[in-house]
Amino acid sequence: MNLPKPIKKLIDSFERLPGIGPKTAQRLTFYLLHVPDEMLDEFGQALMNLKKDTITCSVCFNVSETDPCPICADKTRDHSVICVVEQPLDILAIEKIGKYKGVYHVLGGAISPLNNIGPDELNIKPLLDRVQKSIKSESPKVREIILATNPNMEGEATAMFIKNELRKFQISNFKFQISRLGQGLPTGGDLEYADEVTLQRALEGRREY
Amino acid sequence: MNLPKPIKKLIDSFERLPGIGPKTAQRLTFYLLHVPDEMLDEFGQALMNLKKDTITCSVCFNVSETDPCPICADKTRDHSVICVVEQPLDILAIEKIGKYKGVYHVLGGAISPLNNIGPDELNIKPLLDRVQKSIKSESPKVREIILATNPNMEGEATAMFIKNELRKFQISNFKFQISRLGQGLPTGGDLEYADEVTLQRALEGRREY
Repeated sequence: MNLPKPIKKLIDSFERLPGIGPKTAQRLTFYLLHVPDEMLDEFGQALMNLKKDTITCSVCFNVSETDPCPICADKTRDHSVICVVEQPLDILAIEKIGKYKGVYHVLGGAISPLNNIGPDELNIKPLLDRVQKSIKSESPKVREIILATNPNMEGEATAMFIKNELRKFQISNFKFQISRLGQGLPTGGDLEYADEVTLQRALEGRREY
Repeated sequence: MNLPKPIKKLIDSFERLPGIGPKTAQRLTFYLLHVPDEMLDEFGQALMNLKKDTITCSVCFNVSETDPCPICADKTRDHSVICVVEQPLDILAIEKIGKYKGVYHVLGGAISPLNNIGPDELNIKPLLDRVQKSIKSESPKVREIILATNPNMEGEATAMFIKNELRKFQISNFKFQISRLGQGLPTGGDLEYADEVTLQRALEGRREY
């Protein structure tokens, strides 16, 4: 059976999304045949306006409607603490806790030689520039850089690379702290099912109780 | 953190789709920030044109670009066999086998009192009219009606209801067959894990080998 072209096109569009296979794409498309026209128009407009109405913050590389983004422009936040993340979604996750009051820096990914992503493809140079500028300027100087890349191979390699680059600034009389997010057992997890590396990290990271 | 409005809107649109939760909606939206503009425009256009460019076939109620739909208009198909399905997606599944040469009738759902869907909300009356018209007319008379509603409670109830309605036409000198798709163990399945009803149906439907 040849599917009507408008249906085929939408199925194709859905299929290009990550984690959506041919069956799900079909299901979603046929579901949308039954929704009100306004909802379809809204959805379509939202898609087409997604990139037109958003820009990248020139300071932290987060997606935003304004430049600098609301976080970078917020004077009540602590601009001497920079949390380095891979993606804008990571900022969302940290902001949800509501406890972090510093600012961010989005790398746009992690070093991954298999996917041809080296340090130059990421926003590492702008991060180093940002730190260097803050050292030279009057206020506010960087006190701490939290490396919050993912706890997987690529994220660890990226954190390691950035740490080595940042250390070069620390030779002088100016010192700032470089930290990494705590690793160990996730809350609600089960010790029995934890993998060896996680358990090892949990042991290494044990704290006085 | 207040998400930029264009991002928030698209997340909301994705969240309204069945089987897509808040996390997936976020992931898809942030993925789309990295795709080329043309892909977004194409996706958006596909959504907005979905219902504008498709109509419902007046004979079988399948979605189509033309009326009657390509299957109903196809003279090489056997118009004396009608396969009754719940949704257009079911037609797609049957057509994929490539063995069925009859025509279809889409009910648009199944009888479900819990969801306030009775026989009048479905395309059952048009099916009865279609059968009755074929009995009265010269050619081609209906020979068989395959009730291919889903093998769950709602689908079975719908098949039962339609069977009882169709039987009323069979009192006269004209006879046609009413059949239901075979039920039993799915290919590649495991007898050990089959539920009781499936196993019972498989026993009832056993064939000489």
